[in-house]
Amino acid sequence: MTPLYSRVAFIGLGLIASSMAHAMRRAGLASAMTGTARSAETRIIAREMGLVDEVCDTAADAVEGADLVVLCVPVGAMDEIAREIAPHLAEGATVTDVGSVKQAVIDAVAPHLPDHVHFIPGHPLAGTEHSGPRSGFAELFQNRWCILTPSEGHDPAALDRLSRLWKGMGASVDLMDAPHHDLVLAVTSHTPHLIAYTMVGVADDLRRVTDSEVIKYSAAGFRDFTRIAASDPTMWRDVFLTNKEATLEILGRFTEELFALQRAIRRGDGAHLHDYFTRTRAIRRGIIEAGQDTDAPDFGRIKS
Amino acid sequence: MTPLYSRVAFIGLGLIASSMAHAMRRAGLASAMTGTARSAETRIIAREMGLVDEVCDTAADAVEGADLVVLCVPVGAMDEIAREIAPHLAEGATVTDVGSVKQAVIDAVAPHLPDHVHFIPGHPLAGTEHSGPRSGFAELFQNRWCILTPSEGHDPAALDRLSRLWKGMGASVDLMDAPHHDLVLAVTSHTPHLIAYTMVGVADDLRRVTDSEVIKYSAAGFRDFTRIAASDPTMWRDVFLTNKEATLEILGRFTEELFALQRAIRRGDGAHLHDYFTRTRAIRRGIIEAGQDTDAPDFGRIKS
Repeated sequence: MTPLYSRVAFIGLGLIASSMAHAMRRAGLASAMTGTARSAETRIIAREMGLVDEVCDTAADAVEGADLVVLCVPVGAMDEIAREIAPHLAEGATVTDVGSVKQAVIDAVAPHLPDHVHFIPGHPLAGTEHSGPRSGFAELFQNRWCILTPSEGHDPAALDRLSRLWKGMGASVDLMDAPHHDLVLAVTSHTPHLIAYTMVGVADDLRRVTDSEVIKYSAAGFRDFTRIAASDPTMWRDVFLTNKEATLEILGRFTEELFALQRAIRRGDGAHLHDYFTRTRAIRRGIIEAGQDTDAPDFGRIKS
Repeated sequence: MTPLYSRVAFIGLGLIASSMAHAMRRAGLASAMTGTARSAETRIIAREMGLVDEVCDTAADAVEGADLVVLCVPVGAMDEIAREIAPHLAEGATVTDVGSVKQAVIDAVAPHLPDHVHFIPGHPLAGTEHSGPRSGFAELFQNRWCILTPSEGHDPAALDRLSRLWKGMGASVDLMDAPHHDLVLAVTSHTPHLIAYTMVGVADDLRRVTDSEVIKYSAAGFRDFTRIAASDPTMWRDVFLTNKEATLEILGRFTEELFALQRAIRRGDGAHLHDYFTRTRAIRRGIIEAGQDTDAPDFGRIKS
């Protein structure tokens, strides 16, 4: 493939950035790649791995001459990074990000950027419970969605080029406005993660059920929660701090429903429980039909 | 393998019974197998499949001459089945079950059984989100736990024989008293299922986030919840009605923790969130070390 960008700069070298670097190299999407990370240890690992062509010590150095800058830092670090790189951005460069929240990133980044760059926020819906530069792999975005949230006055050519980059890495691209993105993700990702973290925390707290029993018998359902609850703590802290309103709203709905089911259990109202459990089954079928999972009977199985 | 039982009767022919029939046939654990189901349609399917040697129209017929009877019906149906089969049970037969709750099964079944049979309650920690006689497969119990909860005065030889049956199907066997089983499972299975059902129900209710968006972007975390929430509604209704006390207790702990995290989000207390999310990560490592999951980075991936 003809490279879409001549020089791509990654700010932050964790799971997403390292997966992008592998995917872009494999597909020949960038002529050159640079990168930087706040932690000296991460920079050393990335240099050892040859993850990108040049690992720079500062974000300002990394973005020099880049026609694409990808912000891959936790949402809470976006403001500081934007201030730092702004004076060093090349004329006509595209700046994008991979944050899980979009309005907060726009609020943190857009005010600092010069008029001569294109800012197109993005969010690839892909991840694993692992983090760091060694956790990336080229297939991470295969058959996944990447949501871009361009502003009203965006440059169509810059958007098209960035869309083709994501498609070149195997993803499908969708456009959305930032507040709607944040609400959809509060439902499909942020609240489920908080709930999983909570359930795992409860299990950890219980003294009568020893840790080893919880772990030993985890395949009965709990295991899927622990996988979710093993994700990067800093990233998730920032998600909840920056998508506060939508998360609290969905949490409110969640506890309301949970209390209704709890009351049904207490009262022995089997009909209420059965109706509820029947309704949720249909959603699962929709997901399988939409190609976002398979019907293989692997729940409770060791994955190989 | 020399057959452990000469005639095994399955009462109920769903996921667990059909998986047991496949596993026992493959390993040569039973000389003959009979079975029955309340639904005429299920009996017809089982006959067509040749799932067992003889599909009987009544539970009374099925248990005739059996030296092992396996109750594979929802927990709420155990009492009626026990009454029906009691007069027909062979001298010295073992009666077991596969219910997800143990004390309620003991309360429902034990009073009806004659003294000349051995009642050894059991619970294989294995399943998928599918149900019915066609959903079974011989590997379901491979590398899974089966918990047996024999009473104080149990017959050691009968327990040993049943344990060897489960091991012959690939499972590991653990012994536990029934109330402790019910508490452990409330933590590792029952409460996680209720929470997953709730979250999926909330998503289904939201009108601003359309169904199709929830499904389309499910891979961001929600998908794992829908898999859990697609399990058999009747079975789960009975679990919550019969393991009421333990489930309500764990739910109380859960909402207490959830409210603390919710308050941290509202107040912007990032340190609290970060500490909590760091702690839960360790549990995940324990599960991988215990061999109950792999470390493969497949979260958010299409499983093949």
